[in-house]
Amino acid sequence: MTTSFQWDSFRTEVDRRLRAFVERQRPLVGAPDLAPLLTAAEDFLAGGKRLRPAFCYWGWRGAGGEDGPEICAAAASLELLQASALIHDDVMDSSDMRRGRPSAHRRFQAMHEEAGWRGSPARFGEGAAVLLGSLLLVWSSEMWRTSGLPAEALAAAEPIHDLMRTELMCGQYLDLLEQAHGESTFDSALRVALHKSGKYSVEQPLRLGLVLAAGRQEPWIDRLCVQYGHKVGIAFQLRDDILGVFGDPAETGKPAGDDLREGKRTMLIARTLSAASEGQAADVRRLLGDPALDAQGIARLRGIIEDTGALTAGEEMIKRYLDDALSSLERAPITPEARRALEELAVAATARRS
Amino acid sequence: MTTSFQWDSFRTEVDRRLRAFVERQRPLVGAPDLAPLLTAAEDFLAGGKRLRPAFCYWGWRGAGGEDGPEICAAAASLELLQASALIHDDVMDSSDMRRGRPSAHRRFQAMHEEAGWRGSPARFGEGAAVLLGSLLLVWSSEMWRTSGLPAEALAAAEPIHDLMRTELMCGQYLDLLEQAHGESTFDSALRVALHKSGKYSVEQPLRLGLVLAAGRQEPWIDRLCVQYGHKVGIAFQLRDDILGVFGDPAETGKPAGDDLREGKRTMLIARTLSAASEGQAADVRRLLGDPALDAQGIARLRGIIEDTGALTAGEEMIKRYLDDALSSLERAPITPEARRALEELAVAATARRS
Repeated sequence: MTTSFQWDSFRTEVDRRLRAFVERQRPLVGAPDLAPLLTAAEDFLAGGKRLRPAFCYWGWRGAGGEDGPEICAAAASLELLQASALIHDDVMDSSDMRRGRPSAHRRFQAMHEEAGWRGSPARFGEGAAVLLGSLLLVWSSEMWRTSGLPAEALAAAEPIHDLMRTELMCGQYLDLLEQAHGESTFDSALRVALHKSGKYSVEQPLRLGLVLAAGRQEPWIDRLCVQYGHKVGIAFQLRDDILGVFGDPAETGKPAGDDLREGKRTMLIARTLSAASEGQAADVRRLLGDPALDAQGIARLRGIIEDTGALTAGEEMIKRYLDDALSSLERAPITPEARRALEELAVAATARRS
Repeated sequence: MTTSFQWDSFRTEVDRRLRAFVERQRPLVGAPDLAPLLTAAEDFLAGGKRLRPAFCYWGWRGAGGEDGPEICAAAASLELLQASALIHDDVMDSSDMRRGRPSAHRRFQAMHEEAGWRGSPARFGEGAAVLLGSLLLVWSSEMWRTSGLPAEALAAAEPIHDLMRTELMCGQYLDLLEQAHGESTFDSALRVALHKSGKYSVEQPLRLGLVLAAGRQEPWIDRLCVQYGHKVGIAFQLRDDILGVFGDPAETGKPAGDDLREGKRTMLIARTLSAASEGQAADVRRLLGDPALDAQGIARLRGIIEDTGALTAGEEMIKRYLDDALSSLERAPITPEARRALEELAVAATARRS
């Protein structure tokens, strides 16, 4: 992602704020036997595209807020929330990889194996990862609150902050249910995607930034969040669905076809099933969620997703949602600089990557 | 527990505040497929001795705070934190029971089994319980912050609130490590107990209440928290160790000898091993942590814990810590009513129960 709003320097600032926050915890968590928690947190936080902080930051700037370390720290705290969700998610999905490295629970499992400790290394790994995720969840709210932003600004945004986190947990639960139910409709998959990811990836971070700067929820803020944020969120999630099936491992940080192997019930899969022939549907049901799915199986599933038109429909939907979002942005009463940045962010968040 | 400070009416008020808070979440979490999260939260929160809220409340009153619904709501939020920790703990320990009912993950597992859904019911149960625990963790900070207490009071106590939650997560991680290492010393078991439970059960809730009312950390507050809170916390944890081995299931809400079956490395077990003969130590190592431990095995372990003098030493240590705590209370510049209540709370938290 390269944009005219100095994406690199923003990312550097977010990195710096995250490192400084984690460093502040060292007196508490720096004891030798606790250090693996801190190191795992640092390593995990070194990755990530900083998309959520960027939407929050440009919401703030869009509503007239000045650049400064405080808003960068508040925005960066969203990465701690995201890290917490991913670590817990990987435990629930038994994912081996994340961001090109072993997932947190596999990392703690390996630590247990290398030390030759008692009990099950896998159970130890999962337990430690649950705790690391909870620790980062606690830290995300601490970093948010201690960002240095004025108390009145934080107070105005607090209900959104609370709501976003409740939505995230509920969305992850809906995701578990969706996998357990098996057959998803496009609408049910969309609802999960919105709760679990779309809202807290784009709409709510943007809203947080806007309300922090404006000091209250205003009708134009809500309009922008719904017409731009909500739609970019859906398009972002659709892109994520497509990358999970067709993405390059170097880009996704996960093995090829990982979402297929995990059996994720995405919008893309729902659309595939709704347009599939009987034979195609039977193949999808047989192959999807097979932990031993090989390259041939992945190729067969990819072929069906393409042949049913689900991939094309997904790309078209991304384009339509993105176009709608960009045209609503033109009407929003935000600063020209923020408008340009949010345009570029929307494109970057939903762009085809190869 | 009956005391002169109207324990029952305090408990009723805490119950009411918790129910009101959960009710506020219904518009978000009340959808039919999310309702099991809400119901599980309500059922879980209906239990519990409300010890942590009581220490917080009497800290507040001790430093001159007035009775009112706001402090009761802030204090009650500690029950959400505790519920979160217990739910995650039960997943990590694979505990079947909690507070006399199936643990949260077993409850969600049963829901999966009854519905005949796809995938592993046990994995679904664990995933849902991790999410419920995270949801309650998020709610505990929301309830704390929206208690209605003045912003300055909350701001003064916030660093303690943050520290307490970080300590709790670190303590639970140390507990996992302690089980994995196998052999604990009394000191290492004490360190885990303090981090994981002692501090956040007594010392920090008390400190929160005191600082909320005083508006800042003062030397006398720190003295009281260390000389009374810290010591009551250790005695409370020792009592918990003893109840986990010798307690009546009707009282503990867990099957008899559950801590022995789970192989918990408590201070009581560390002291037993340090005083055991070779034969006794071999028996402890063989039986402790055996998931199939039967009544005979439990009786053998109980016998060793008694014969080595570890039980008596534990009881004596509880008495000594309690006596020290009570005499430090006499010197603290708190209201007479709070002094009496904190005396009774210390006794109640550490008392032998049969």
